[in-house]
Amino acid sequence: MSLPATDRIVGQLLDTIDTPALLINLDALEANIAAMAALCAGKPQRLRPHAKTHKSPIIAAMQRQAGAVGICCAKISEVEALVGGSIDDVLITTPLVGAPKLARLAALASRVHVTTVVDNIEALAGLAEAAIRAGTTLDVLVEVDVGQNRCGVRSPEAAADLADGIARHRSLRFAGLQGYQGKLQGIVSPQERRAAVLQAMQGLQDAAALVRARGHTIEVLTGGGTGSVRFDLDLEILQELQPGSYVFMDASYRKIGWDEQGSPPPFRPALTILTRVISKPASDRVVVDAGWKASSCDAGPPEVFGRDDLVFDFAGDEHGTLARVDGSPVGLRLGDVVRLLPSHCDTTVNLYRVYTVHRGGRVEAMWPVTAQGCSR
Amino acid sequence: MSLPATDRIVGQLLDTIDTPALLINLDALEANIAAMAALCAGKPQRLRPHAKTHKSPIIAAMQRQAGAVGICCAKISEVEALVGGSIDDVLITTPLVGAPKLARLAALASRVHVTTVVDNIEALAGLAEAAIRAGTTLDVLVEVDVGQNRCGVRSPEAAADLADGIARHRSLRFAGLQGYQGKLQGIVSPQERRAAVLQAMQGLQDAAALVRARGHTIEVLTGGGTGSVRFDLDLEILQELQPGSYVFMDASYRKIGWDEQGSPPPFRPALTILTRVISKPASDRVVVDAGWKASSCDAGPPEVFGRDDLVFDFAGDEHGTLARVDGSPVGLRLGDVVRLLPSHCDTTVNLYRVYTVHRGGRVEAMWPVTAQGCSR
Repeated sequence: MSLPATDRIVGQLLDTIDTPALLINLDALEANIAAMAALCAGKPQRLRPHAKTHKSPIIAAMQRQAGAVGICCAKISEVEALVGGSIDDVLITTPLVGAPKLARLAALASRVHVTTVVDNIEALAGLAEAAIRAGTTLDVLVEVDVGQNRCGVRSPEAAADLADGIARHRSLRFAGLQGYQGKLQGIVSPQERRAAVLQAMQGLQDAAALVRARGHTIEVLTGGGTGSVRFDLDLEILQELQPGSYVFMDASYRKIGWDEQGSPPPFRPALTILTRVISKPASDRVVVDAGWKASSCDAGPPEVFGRDDLVFDFAGDEHGTLARVDGSPVGLRLGDVVRLLPSHCDTTVNLYRVYTVHRGGRVEAMWPVTAQGCSR
Repeated sequence: MSLPATDRIVGQLLDTIDTPALLINLDALEANIAAMAALCAGKPQRLRPHAKTHKSPIIAAMQRQAGAVGICCAKISEVEALVGGSIDDVLITTPLVGAPKLARLAALASRVHVTTVVDNIEALAGLAEAAIRAGTTLDVLVEVDVGQNRCGVRSPEAAADLADGIARHRSLRFAGLQGYQGKLQGIVSPQERRAAVLQAMQGLQDAAALVRARGHTIEVLTGGGTGSVRFDLDLEILQELQPGSYVFMDASYRKIGWDEQGSPPPFRPALTILTRVISKPASDRVVVDAGWKASSCDAGPPEVFGRDDLVFDFAGDEHGTLARVDGSPVGLRLGDVVRLLPSHCDTTVNLYRVYTVHRGGRVEAMWPVTAQGCSR
């Protein structure tokens, strides 16, 4: 299916457009990108935002314009969808394994600067061959498990052995370490979150120390996310930061305390789902046209944006229900629209082909979700 | 992003292709379509499979070829993506509300035979106007809530009032009732499921009786799904059946008992996710490249296909973990592939742009998921 005809939608009032629609509040998006640039201003760390959140070359270019050195991508296909223009320097944050991935990596690496991560000595020969096929030298980071319990080597010795292994390949260049801890990003208490960041960074520093002791130069320690960025900037252990969700925020990230005073994060909710009442089966419940195809559920149901009195619940692929917290009549009419705040922005964005970008209550642009479905 | 270059993939062995990939076992798909045709053979009911499952005009055409009278779609955008060729008769199973939907409906209804459902008197004026704009008469069904507790009128009186309302519009034609109960489809015990079907159908018959008493002709009672189809065929209350998932099956539907003897359903698992081991952090756990972007989670995690000894768990947008049920070493190597059986086929299909169709262990075709993301 092609994108909707832009000329008929741009300029329309938000509450008149077709639903469900994934909305970007452009004022909020711009403010969030500016707020992150302000946080990083005067700091030694480089900002390399994770594009897995937005999947959009337009937003990646806005981040670059605001000072980002490049972007992170989770997968090769995401890079393929996003590079070009000012985006010419990408870190792929997931290990690349298998001949098809390596063939695509070789094609990419001959065009743009790609850095990859590795956590297994068996993966090195394939990476080295891909670099040779690309006629280039590939920058490789060792991924260290700093508490995520997912990918990554699990000891300083394993990190140092892998750095040794990289150094034995002429077409590979050991560039440093990645240590990302996703689970700590959402810890609500800033004190507890800071303690978790310290613990994760201790693991990364231990690995870095042994790698250096083996004679390797570490150009970059990279990691961090929207929940840890404030502490990462203070600690100055990481040299590159990978936050993604700050551009949009979501219901989960909105809940975290930012600092010791318990302030909210300095980022505004920029991403919402516009949905319409399509059925009124009872006074205490209405049905809207947003279900599992309109909002991801891996982090729970979305919240009703700006309406703390309403609760959303999934009711199938295409349906959701709205009820009042106190069980009183919902008070919405057939055709009325409400907005939902996603519980997880990345996976919700992945359900849409296009963003409806609005400012001042009207549609300002339609931006394709270029890297939607790019899981390879 | 464009589709992958078909010529380089067709003919390849399955375990050599890029991952994650959404696979269709063509033998199983063909067998499932034939099995449903065999169930319906000699029965008075018409088969109108729900295309929300597969989102593919190719599979819709296969179903039509095997005797289906047309298809069901959940949304207007799904119809737009699937009609054409032999698909010229569509029932949209979700109420259509709002000016943008009605404008699209008018454009569609002038080209193909579209039947819509309604559950609120306030929606009739818009439907009538759309029919006039299309220069046609629109067939309208009254949706009756038969236990789903979602859309649908909730009493025979409300159904009859709505039939009266439809009859007052010259451009609308009252065609019958829809009564779908999704929740009962997955009841494992065939005895309990049959009892739930009987109860739901009693509600539909009560509504039908009052509608007829008001002088309306009911051409069709439509509903049913993969879990109820066997009972629907025996009961002969519904005249049109809407099963969708039988083409693929999934881990949830595979669990239901088919008949009083407890036989499994006569449909084979045809849809799996091919995923590759990308990290081996510990002997009792490997990481694969399938996460929330590769498999829906609304019905829980997928199963490991053909490997009852392995358990999959989500580990983020792009990651999953595999472990042995007994905690023993996993025994998979870096780069090895395994297949996952989705817990919910419809929402998993919605995550992909293309099916990799295989037969005899090799790729036979690449079929676009034409209606992917069509939630409007």
